[in-house]
Order: sequence, then structure tokens, then C-alpha cells
Amino acid sequence: MTVRIGLVGTGTVGGGCIDILQAHKDDFKRHYGIDVELARVCSLSPAEAEAHGVGHLFTNDFNEVINDPDIDLVVELIGGTTFARTVVLGALAAGKNVVTANKALMATHGEEVMDAAAAAGKEIAFEASVGGGIPIIDPLKHSLIANEITSVMGIVNGTTNYMLTRMADDGMDYAEALAEAQAAGFAEADPSADVDGFDAAAKIAILASIAFNSRVVMDQVHTDGITAISPVDLEAARDMGYVVKLLAIAHRRPEGIDVRVHPTMIPDTHQLATVNGVMNAIYVVGDAVGETMFFGAGAGSGPAASAVMGDVLEVARHIEQGVGPIVGCTCTDNLPILPVEELEMKYYIRFSVSDRPGVLAAMTGVFAQHNVSVHSVVQRGKGTNGVVDVVYVTHTARERAIRAVIAEIAALDDVLHADPSVIRVEE
Amino acid sequence: MTVRIGLVGTGTVGGGCIDILQAHKDDFKRHYGIDVELARVCSLSPAEAEAHGVGHLFTNDFNEVINDPDIDLVVELIGGTTFARTVVLGALAAGKNVVTANKALMATHGEEVMDAAAAAGKEIAFEASVGGGIPIIDPLKHSLIANEITSVMGIVNGTTNYMLTRMADDGMDYAEALAEAQAAGFAEADPSADVDGFDAAAKIAILASIAFNSRVVMDQVHTDGITAISPVDLEAARDMGYVVKLLAIAHRRPEGIDVRVHPTMIPDTHQLATVNGVMNAIYVVGDAVGETMFFGAGAGSGPAASAVMGDVLEVARHIEQGVGPIVGCTCTDNLPILPVEELEMKYYIRFSVSDRPGVLAAMTGVFAQHNVSVHSVVQRGKGTNGVVDVVYVTHTARERAIRAVIAEIAALDDVLHADPSVIRVEE
Repeated sequence: MTVRIGLVGTGTVGGGCIDILQAHKDDFKRHYGIDVELARVCSLSPAEAEAHGVGHLFTNDFNEVINDPDIDLVVELIGGTTFARTVVLGALAAGKNVVTANKALMATHGEEVMDAAAAAGKEIAFEASVGGGIPIIDPLKHSLIANEITSVMGIVNGTTNYMLTRMADDGMDYAEALAEAQAAGFAEADPSADVDGFDAAAKIAILASIAFNSRVVMDQVHTDGITAISPVDLEAARDMGYVVKLLAIAHRRPEGIDVRVHPTMIPDTHQLATVNGVMNAIYVVGDAVGETMFFGAGAGSGPAASAVMGDVLEVARHIEQGVGPIVGCTCTDNLPILPVEELEMKYYIRFSVSDRPGVLAAMTGVFAQHNVSVHSVVQRGKGTNGVVDVVYVTHTARERAIRAVIAEIAALDDVLHADPSVIRVEE
Repeated sequence: MTVRIGLVGTGTVGGGCIDILQAHKDDFKRHYGIDVELARVCSLSPAEAEAHGVGHLFTNDFNEVINDPDIDLVVELIGGTTFARTVVLGALAAGKNVVTANKALMATHGEEVMDAAAAAGKEIAFEASVGGGIPIIDPLKHSLIANEITSVMGIVNGTTNYMLTRMADDGMDYAEALAEAQAAGFAEADPSADVDGFDAAAKIAILASIAFNSRVVMDQVHTDGITAISPVDLEAARDMGYVVKLLAIAHRRPEGIDVRVHPTMIPDTHQLATVNGVMNAIYVVGDAVGETMFFGAGAGSGPAASAVMGDVLEVARHIEQGVGPIVGCTCTDNLPILPVEELEMKYYIRFSVSDRPGVLAAMTGVFAQHNVSVHSVVQRGKGTNGVVDVVYVTHTARERAIRAVIAEIAALDDVLHADPSVIRVEE
């Protein structure tokens, strides 16, 4: 039999999927006995469909795809949580299997989507929602299930990793790095989803849900972006044997799930430390397997389409063999999400302060008052215009205490000249 | 229903599997609805079974496992290609599904085993045969199948990677590194399988077969070990911006499959270059996904048992759902294996030669005679006892020509004092 595919969305990833199908359709049949055919293509742009040679399959009405009785599998690549949700839920309700690359949808409405798939007895697959072409959801749902997963940490946003790499290697400041990333097409005109960490937050919500068998939604992820990071932070980190990455972090703690996204200092010997430019990597620790890492391109037409088409072929293989969904929702537990204020770790904090006598003593006094033990305090660079950078690195401290320290220092008369740069440390 | 498991082999990996089952049996049921029970344990050592609390399940006769009508799934962890082959084929013939960690079996009798599984309509799974706990066979058989895979390169032997790391970082010579690895339990008393590259050859045969959809057996893999490597090679590599790793390499070329195991110089910026100690990593390049890498512990009780039990749970899941084998043998093509003599690459060759006038001219003349273009020639260290190291790095040359050069230099009167160290270069 032939499995007929309806594709909704013909942008970068959708175009990549069409290209893969055209290049390798015969290989899929010969190697795996999987016979797939693109039956319908839906988007707002007939020109995009025509550019990939499938203008004859075009419609601009997604209902024509999800209600076509000849279509077995709908691929949703339009993104967002409004139309995409309608398409995905509509396709499942109409008895189609669904493949999506939509991280926002899965990280926000994942439970609803999984429930709809279960109710319909159909498959929902979403490997491409995290890490582009890197196989990570499949290993977590299959190869690694004999483990209790204790940590998942990833560089899952290529845009910010590119910017931080340029800032660290070439001394660019944030604005220069952003402008370059925008010019290169790595960052959007409105870069907020990347630089404020929301993209990474959606991805770690998905990974944590699978790894810990307990639903985490995007809004539960404490998220700090990279907008306050400056080259002086990256130099200071390097001098201490660390690098700074925007990490999406999820740890299983005895009390619950610790999940967050923020700029993070990691030792320069850590396997994630050499993941540079637009590359992504996800580091997974399990009680039996120990440390593992999955590395690759986190975005782009080819990598994302590789993941989407991997899902399409797997679902098609099941359809051809008459096999139903093998793994559904695995969020069987209901672990609490730990408030970030209660977490304990080490902190790097850079203050831009007035370069005058007494300031350092006053600030250090605030740390002492809150019982935050300071590992080192270093003035960096020469003061210009009466402003100087002072870098504190603490011993392990509670986030609540760190916040109190920062608030109190901010309230000191004529001390702070900018928001402090706070970088948490993972050893 | 409960899926009943018969375990054959209670050594390091078998013990790890029992431990996982005991720790997480309830989790598997709650999270995944997979209900597994260890029904029988076979080995030559009742003490090993007792040490893991399963002495009551012990037998020393594998026929009692493979012929037990209540057993659904046999796990073969005895290794080797004699008894293990009998157990695996016998279990399949008796209608059991089989999970194995046996690289030698799969790299030598893989076709026979896959055919037997297909004939029986049962599953054969072997994730643990390559890369210990690293999920690599599953991604190649599922997530990445939309790609034409062009290269698979791996550090797949922890023992030799540990030795090379110690030699590079601490200046140990080969014998010291081996003695330390043996003392630490990383190397066997007879280290040949590791240091001569045969273990890696079995693993790359398995990976190449899956990646290129064409059967490669262990004997077809050109294999050089690390016994001729000395610290001077590692220093020379470092000075040129390279590191030396024992790589298992498989490239898909227009003419066929290029597959080999040998010490290899790779740029120190390559993602594999920082994989040190006993860690393993497999680097995969596909036409859509680009570069990916899978990193983790390549051996040890926990990691190997993680992979074995991942397979066990997946097969058990299928048994409980009434699903037969989803992916069988995918070696549908019959690509030729390219003879190593015809390959072209760059070469590093270190000769220990007599420290006297005319030697360098004579040697360099031999390179010229065979039209092998030399990129650099450097004398390393001071000559002691009238012997000096001379290091050649060539431009791209054919292996056949390199071998002719070496043979001719070896035939020069009173020149060579030891076998040359040949390290191929991958850019």
C-alpha cells in the first residue's frame, strides 16, 4: 500500500521535506518497504509549492487536507499555537496520524494533543520540535527508558549559541552579535523568542516531560535570556576556566523537577562547552547509562526536515504494517515544579558600579548580611566615566538570598549603573 | 500480560541488567505499561546469579532457557561466536525474541542471525553491540532513515581511547599506558582485540551495514591497531593542530564502501577530538541532517545494561501489544567494499632512521620516485644512539603508493630502525 501524506506549511522545513521525498522516495521503498506519496500541499503561498515542483498539489484551505479521506498522515509545519492547534486537533479528529515540528504547541497544549491522539487511536510524532535534526525524543522514548533520567541539559537554541560564540571568540558586544545574526538569517527581526529564552523554554518543557514522565509546560519554566550578557562576562568566565552558554536545564531532584533556561557557566572541559556557533547539543544523564550527549544542527531546512521525515517514515511504516501507536503519553507521574527561589547553586554576578571609595565595602556587606558566602570578588577593566565592573562569584547559595542581595544593592544610593549580569554556575 | 525473560550470561552486563530490573520493574509498568519478569538465568557461575539475588532462577544449561515454553525473550550476553551463535539461533528457532550485546556475532554471522529472525517472525535487537549505552543503532534504524548517510566515524573502543588519552596528555609510552589500562580493568590480560583494532572493526561493520543498507562483515574491514603509536606521534600531531584517535571509519563513496579502522589524525577542532578517556562517540553525516554526534560511555555494567534493557523493554512492549518485528534486515543493496590500496588521503609517517648524512635525501627521493607529494618533513627530537625520528606528512596520495614508498625505504641499506608509524589523516 501507499501511505498518502498531506503537508501543511511550505516554508523552510516544508520545502526541505518535499525535497527529501523527491530525492529518496525510491530508496525508502527499496530499503525499508515504505511507500509514501505526497498527496496534498497546503499553505498561503502557491509560489512556494511551485518552487518545489508540487504546485499541482496546492490548496490554501487546510480543511481540504485534514478532511481528505485519501490522506493517511498530516504533517503540520505552520508553527504557532492557533491555526496549528486547529490543524493538529482537526487532523486527529478526522482519523489522521500527525507529525509536527511545533515546539510551542507541544510545550503548551501537549496534553490536549496527546489526549486527542489517544482518543483517535492515531499517532502524534514531534521529533523535530527539539534539536532540529538531532535524534533526542526518540532515544528518550525508546533506547534510554531502562534508566531513571536524572538530568537533561541542552544548548537548544542555535541563534543565541551563535551570538554567544561570536561574543566570546571575537569580543563582539550583544548588539553587534545580534545584528550579525539577523543579517545572516539566524535571528528574526523580532528576536525575542530566541534572545529572551522562550524558544529554549518550550524545548526543555518537552524534554523534561518525556525524561521525567511528568508533564511540564512552557509557562512553568523559569526563563532568563542573554540580553544582559556582555563580552566582559565571557572574558571573566574564560579566566576562571568556564564558558557561558544559554542552557535549558532540567534536573530531577528528590523534591521535584528543577527546570529553567538561563545563561550558565559550565567548566570549559564539559562536553557541552565546545558546542559552538549554530550547533545544538543535548546532554542526558541516566542512572544506568551515565552521561550521554546528542549533537547536531538545531535548525535549518535539511536538519529539521530530516527529523520530520524520520517521523513520517516511522508512522508510515506502522500504517503499512497495520500497527497502531506504540508509545503514547508517558507522563504518568505528577511531580511538583520547584520554585526557582528555593534552588541552591553558585552564582556569578557582575555589577556596573560607581568607581568611588566605600562602594565595594557596602556591596560586600550586603552579601554578608544575607549569609551569602563569597568565593571571589574581582574588579574587571579600568573604570571609565566613573563606572567600574565588579564581579562576585559566590559559594553555593539559595536563589532567594541572591535576589535579596541584588535588590538591596540596587537600593544603595548612587551605586548601580546598570542591571547586574547574573550567570548561574553548573559544575 | 507479563513478558518473561531468560537471561544467558551473568557477568558484568548481565549483572547490570538484573540490577536495572530489580530497581525499576515497577517504574516500567507505571510509565510504559511494560510488565517484564526475569524467569530464568543461565551461566557457568551460580555465585554470580546469587550475588544479584537471583540464585533461585539459576541453571547452567542454556537449553533450559531457550526451550522453556514460558519464556518470551532470550537475552544473550555470553559473547563470542560459538556458544552464543547456538543460543541465539536456537532461541529464534524455538520462537523466542532475542536481544544480544554480541558485536562479534552480529559482525560475523549477522546475515544468518537476521535471516533466522525473519524466518521465525521474531525480533532480534542488538543496540548494546556498538557504543555501550549510546543510542546509535536505534537512531540509524529509525530517526535518521530519511537521510542518505554518507559517513559514520567513531571512537568505539574505550580501552584504546583511554590509552591514547594518557599517552597524549601525560607522555606515557604505549607499554605504560597498556599496563595502566590493564591495572584499571579497562584492558584484558590479552589486549589484542582492543589494541589491534578488532573490537572496533566489528562495531564499524555493524554500523556501516545499517547506515549504507549493504552488508559489511568484520573480515572486510581493513584494521590497524595502535601498537606502533608512540608519544612522539601524539606530540607531532599536537604541533600541527591535530589529535590522534583510533577511529572506526565508514564512508559511502560513489564507487562503494570505504571502511577501515586505524589510528587517525583529526583536527583538534573536530567534535570527536575532545572525546577522551574511556568515552565513546559516533559521528554520523547525512545528506539532510548534516553532522550529528552521539556521545557516551562505551562500556561498563550500567551503560551496556542500559542498552540491553532498552532493547528488552522495546521488544516486550511489542510483545504486549501483539506487534511483530517492525524493522528487519535493511541490507537491500550490495555495494562493493573498496580495497584500501585504492583509497586516497593524506598520510603522516614517522620513520626511526640512522642519523647519518644522505639518509634524508635517499628517503625523500623514494617519495619523489613514487610521485607522492610531500607537504612537510621534520626531524623530531635529538638523535640518540645514532637513531633519529623523521616525520613526513604527505599531500593526498594513494595508499598503494604510500605502501610502495615504505617498502622501498625499508629496503634501503642501514636506514630503518623500527617499523614506521603510519597515521592516516581525516580532515
